[in-house]
Amino acid sequence: MRYLYHLPLSPFSRKVRLVLSEKRLPYEPRLEKVWDRRPEYLDMNPAGTVPTLLEDNGLVIPDSNVICEYLEEAYPDTVLMGRTLAERVEVRRLCAWFDGKFAQEVTRNLLGEKFMKRLSGRGEPDAYAIRNGYTALRHHLQYIGWLAETRKWLAGANISLADFAAAGHLSALDFASDVDWTISPAVKDWYARMKSRPSFRGILSDRVPGVTPPAHYADLDF
Amino acid sequence: MRYLYHLPLSPFSRKVRLVLSEKRLPYEPRLEKVWDRRPEYLDMNPAGTVPTLLEDNGLVIPDSNVICEYLEEAYPDTVLMGRTLAERVEVRRLCAWFDGKFAQEVTRNLLGEKFMKRLSGRGEPDAYAIRNGYTALRHHLQYIGWLAETRKWLAGANISLADFAAAGHLSALDFASDVDWTISPAVKDWYARMKSRPSFRGILSDRVPGVTPPAHYADLDF
Ligand SMILES: N[C@@H](CCC(=O)N[C@@H](CS)C(=O)NCC(=O)O)C(=O)O
Ligand SMILES: N[C@@H](CCC(=O)N[C@@H](CS)C(=O)NCC(=O)O)C(=O)O
Repeated sequence: MRYLYHLPLSPFSRKVRLVLSEKRLPYEPRLEKVWDRRPEYLDMNPAGTVPTLLEDNGLVIPDSNVICEYLEEAYPDTVLMGRTLAERVEVRRLCAWFDGKFAQEVTRNLLGEKFMKRLSGRGEPDAYAIRNGYTALRHHLQYIGWLAETRKWLAGANISLADFAAAGHLSALDFASDVDWTISPAVKDWYARMKSRPSFRGILSDRVPGVTPPAHYADLDF
Repeated sequence: MRYLYHLPLSPFSRKVRLVLSEKRLPYEPRLEKVWDRRPEYLDMNPAGTVPTLLEDNGLVIPDSNVICEYLEEAYPDTVLMGRTLAERVEVRRLCAWFDGKFAQEVTRNLLGEKFMKRLSGRGEPDAYAIRNGYTALRHHLQYIGWLAETRKWLAGANISLADFAAAGHLSALDFASDVDWTISPAVKDWYARMKSRPSFRGILSDRVPGVTPPAHYADLDF
């Protein structure tokens, strides 16, 4: 069996869950409370982060980017990273953008401050960071809106890992009621298309103790 | 002509310079003072970071990880990312480790505080961050030492992008006199092997206004 060590609110884990489903690769999710720093988990992934994929042949693959590159090479039937060199550059550029810049400026300041900090015993939420997170999210929604207005999918004509990277972050933020979908109709339309994909079902039925998602979270016509 | 927009002390730029040289791809370096936020540069790389590669066919490739994946696909004669799926996972895992965890815990706290912060007008160096950086560097040198003791190169039997990612960070830190090479003889031996490669020559002859590297910086028998 293939196992995915993950946390439901982790955008990086969500991206991998979406990709596994898009590629029709069955797996069993395993909740990994990273703040416990389990020695057996640190043996698999010394960075101590989720996700980590354990393949049925025993291969251990830590880090969502490493997992997605691996899945694209090992299971190339469903192409998610583009076909030409130029397409692949644009897909990877946007993945680096969402998992780098967006994650630092938005996700860490919102989900990081509101949930991860307390769970991992690193103190109380910082109101200043949270305010910065909301400001950055507005700018990022505008940038995603520009992409969604000028292209069919975020990286171009085909759905790609860039869409799943963005959806990983936005769906986790939406679970925490942090996304104002009125800012960009183009983003809302793109996200409605993402939500209606079969691969999204698992994400939409997530439950997290102590966090109630907004009513529209799992609504396909939100 | 191929152009690389870079900064001499940027570990991410150094990694790409090493890879371009290992693959014998000629290029012209262009100094990009990222803190100026030149509009023409932001058009090429909206993240505003170095490096960015401009290929002779006009393709623009931002982000060191995206550049290295691209170069491996476009110029596969010199293999730097492993051949089997398992090798490629280990190379990419270590690249994510150095450019993610090491960069956050060490490079940002040392080079970031001492140079980038002032250059980009984000205030004065924070002594607490710098102390954390040195502590983290000691732990990281032990981890790299363990890799170097148990493997020929950091990711296994062959030299790979993992070695160039690590060397990008360590050479930039060494330029700023931040590395205590006595901590791990295995790391020192590995780094001496890296330094003696022809691809390292450009790195060793770097000059940065206002920073004098230690005498051993360019010394192959340091
Ligand atoms: N580069 C990693 C980042 C993963 C990451 O930061 N995961 C967070 C949860 S969203 C985590 O595990 N944090 C725990 C920690 O940093 O200790 C990836 O892409 O998988
Ligand atoms: N993920 C990027 C990171 C590059 C990066 O952070 N570069 C630094 C210099 S070492 C930079 O340009 N910083 C300017 C800024 O963040 O504004 C890559 O791998 O290229």
